[in-house]
Amino acid sequence: MAAMNTNNLGTSTISSLSSAFLAPTSFNSRARSVPVRVKRIGVIKCVAAPQQEQTVYQTNVSRNANMAKLQAGYLFPEIARRRAAHLQKYPNAQVISLGIGDTTEPIPEVITSAMAKRCLGLSTLEGYSGYGAEQGEKLLRAAIASTFYSNLGIEEDDIFVSDGAKCDISRLQLLFGSNVKMAVQDPSYPAYVDSSVIMGQTGQFQKDVQKYGNIEYMRCTPENGFFPDLSTVARTDIIFFCSPNNPTGAAANRDQLTQLVKFAKENGSIIVFDSAYAMYMSDDNPRTIFEIPGAKEVAIETSSFSKYAGFTGVRLGWTVVPKQLLFSDGFPVAKDFNRIVCTCFNGASNIPQAGGLACLSPEGLKAMQEVIGFYKENTKIIVDTFNSLGFKVYGGANAPYVWVHFPGRSSWDVFSEILEKTHVVTTPGSGFGPGGEGFIRVSAFGHRKNVLEACRRFKELYR
Amino acid sequence: MAAMNTNNLGTSTISSLSSAFLAPTSFNSRARSVPVRVKRIGVIKCVAAPQQEQTVYQTNVSRNANMAKLQAGYLFPEIARRRAAHLQKYPNAQVISLGIGDTTEPIPEVITSAMAKRCLGLSTLEGYSGYGAEQGEKLLRAAIASTFYSNLGIEEDDIFVSDGAKCDISRLQLLFGSNVKMAVQDPSYPAYVDSSVIMGQTGQFQKDVQKYGNIEYMRCTPENGFFPDLSTVARTDIIFFCSPNNPTGAAANRDQLTQLVKFAKENGSIIVFDSAYAMYMSDDNPRTIFEIPGAKEVAIETSSFSKYAGFTGVRLGWTVVPKQLLFSDGFPVAKDFNRIVCTCFNGASNIPQAGGLACLSPEGLKAMQEVIGFYKENTKIIVDTFNSLGFKVYGGANAPYVWVHFPGRSSWDVFSEILEKTHVVTTPGSGFGPGGEGFIRVSAFGHRKNVLEACRRFKELYR
Repeated sequence: MAAMNTNNLGTSTISSLSSAFLAPTSFNSRARSVPVRVKRIGVIKCVAAPQQEQTVYQTNVSRNANMAKLQAGYLFPEIARRRAAHLQKYPNAQVISLGIGDTTEPIPEVITSAMAKRCLGLSTLEGYSGYGAEQGEKLLRAAIASTFYSNLGIEEDDIFVSDGAKCDISRLQLLFGSNVKMAVQDPSYPAYVDSSVIMGQTGQFQKDVQKYGNIEYMRCTPENGFFPDLSTVARTDIIFFCSPNNPTGAAANRDQLTQLVKFAKENGSIIVFDSAYAMYMSDDNPRTIFEIPGAKEVAIETSSFSKYAGFTGVRLGWTVVPKQLLFSDGFPVAKDFNRIVCTCFNGASNIPQAGGLACLSPEGLKAMQEVIGFYKENTKIIVDTFNSLGFKVYGGANAPYVWVHFPGRSSWDVFSEILEKTHVVTTPGSGFGPGGEGFIRVSAFGHRKNVLEACRRFKELYR
Repeated sequence: MAAMNTNNLGTSTISSLSSAFLAPTSFNSRARSVPVRVKRIGVIKCVAAPQQEQTVYQTNVSRNANMAKLQAGYLFPEIARRRAAHLQKYPNAQVISLGIGDTTEPIPEVITSAMAKRCLGLSTLEGYSGYGAEQGEKLLRAAIASTFYSNLGIEEDDIFVSDGAKCDISRLQLLFGSNVKMAVQDPSYPAYVDSSVIMGQTGQFQKDVQKYGNIEYMRCTPENGFFPDLSTVARTDIIFFCSPNNPTGAAANRDQLTQLVKFAKENGSIIVFDSAYAMYMSDDNPRTIFEIPGAKEVAIETSSFSKYAGFTGVRLGWTVVPKQLLFSDGFPVAKDFNRIVCTCFNGASNIPQAGGLACLSPEGLKAMQEVIGFYKENTKIIVDTFNSLGFKVYGGANAPYVWVHFPGRSSWDVFSEILEKTHVVTTPGSGFGPGGEGFIRVSAFGHRKNVLEACRRFKELYR
């Protein structure tokens, strides 16, 4: 234990843009550099230089050891921090962000007008509603079931409406608890691994291999078509699987998903299938894991309106927990998930739910398809650009992400080179796991003129 | 391990209204009644009567033992279930709910029009926004700081905007992890205890005392003025404290909260102060724990727009984690909470945030005060009614809850008696902990005519 200089503390800002969050190690080491013995309880005094003489109180509550395992900041706040630092260095730079996968196009009016109507209705006796069902509004659950899972045996009461897939991933971790082992695609969306670390499912981070202990990393590379060689994957309780994939853009085909379900069944594992990009699929691959026979007995699916309707800030998603999915003692997983949803959550905001319902009307579906079509055109522009420059490019066809290979180079170096020389923010592949090293992810979310301008700059840099 | 009759499974509905959720014990015992040995992996067959012959697959993932500790359902879904059962029994009954504390009055137009405007703006290039800051919009954080914590040294960056206090309570539990011990007021809002059980901080439920192991229950009774005798309270890491209190309606005064902060400081504990009802305060008690000198070094505060602006369905709250609050190793609690918020949450919906900002405008504050004033009139009607009937009545002055004593009787019996004979839904005190036995909580949230009618029926039943 060590006392800290309160002057440092006073200036630290709690924000995802703050570099202080990204350097817990250096923060600790700064603390260690002041060798003052601290009483376990009560007010203590710094014995530093006079101008720093202030009292610091520390509680006697131990920091959660799992939190201390986390490496640096969550990926996307780190990128936001580097972007901010870049803007400080080049205040007049026309920075273009193809980094964090944030939607940019306005939400179709058929959807926002339904939300506005719900808002105004809340000021009337007839339109007012208080607490909704924690699982979501009945009409929306039914619309999700019939739109995305028609004829697949998924019913309205299997659907849990949420404030987004990322939030549900953590609620699923809470449901599973700390005594499970998980597998992830490598590379993968970092919330799977980070939430597993927070729940105490993992060991320490191993710097040499850039992996946490007690997580099975399923390597996805160009060589295996971004589908893991399951014969080399150890049995785990939980398998996180995202298709179409973030970040690689790869979508698993029917045969591959059939293999995955078979693998889960043989091992008695539960798949958490992330289908947040399913509507971006061009090829004839399954849009949901529940297209695979038997999946209801081994899979949960989580999805989101974020990338379909521009709801990244509106916050609306869902998770499917089929009643056929059972723990080893026969207890239905859905009953425990329902308990989590009722105890740790209070349902998605009613206004976004009105928006979700509008999304799934015939007009809403058409409007969403148009937005998705727009981003898919962006994707093609980016793919064509990197192809024309001679890069190996993956993804793009079934997802709004382009996965560009820079063999032999560090992802963060490439990220920095692109940012420094073109003022374009991308995402370093290694941020998604060691399997992403040597790649960068270019997001297709952006205004057309920005995407075209970014591609012009890419051509200038790499031609 | 046991196989289950799939016919039973097929008819169970995943909903908070479903009784199946409320009887995990009987569910298990039903499972045990079919003595079939199950292979650990793979498809198995029931050997029950021919018409039940179906295959059931069970994964090999163990159910989280902490989830299995939870008793029955979360309180409020249980009440909703009993209400539904009552309606089935009396289809024509004019049921009045003074049970779950759900707001009923329309949201003032100054607030909903701001939300509607934000909605429609999302369809424009200028008004569109994607991912917001996970911690909340800067303007809203600043408005919360200046409205509720002016001159108390709480700054904008100490405020984390959320989708409600209940959700933040679970995020705080995730932050603390499983190796802490907590204290709660007894009785108290059940989310504190239930989230602690889910996180694995507790032992099993002890039926004889109606308490979980490894939780410190701080008894709050009429005799001690609903403030615990701290000289008998064991040291814990975390102290959940709600004032004005749900369910007793009692508010701690300045002297009591000073004692509480001193107690926390001497023990090196962290207080999680729930101030969700602070705007209902009539007396000159602190509205926030941060009015107590030194509280910033030992306390977190969580609060909500739900009961001020009728946002129970809109979902908006906040949590204050002062940068002065440190773990025993000197690491700021706020930095870990920020990491939780960035990894396990993605910020509150942008539309409710526009509403929150409108709430804190001069017109919005005035409108909220009018809604609160209305519910306070309801409270007085309920208090006067039970007083006139000769009951000992607590709460009501500083909170929208009336805590009525039925000495020597079971809370659930009184709940059932009132429901059966008056068709009014209340909340049994024992649902908030063993210290609530013999009480019922009557919520003041309701249309005036319903509150008057409920009171008329109470007078008929108990005169």
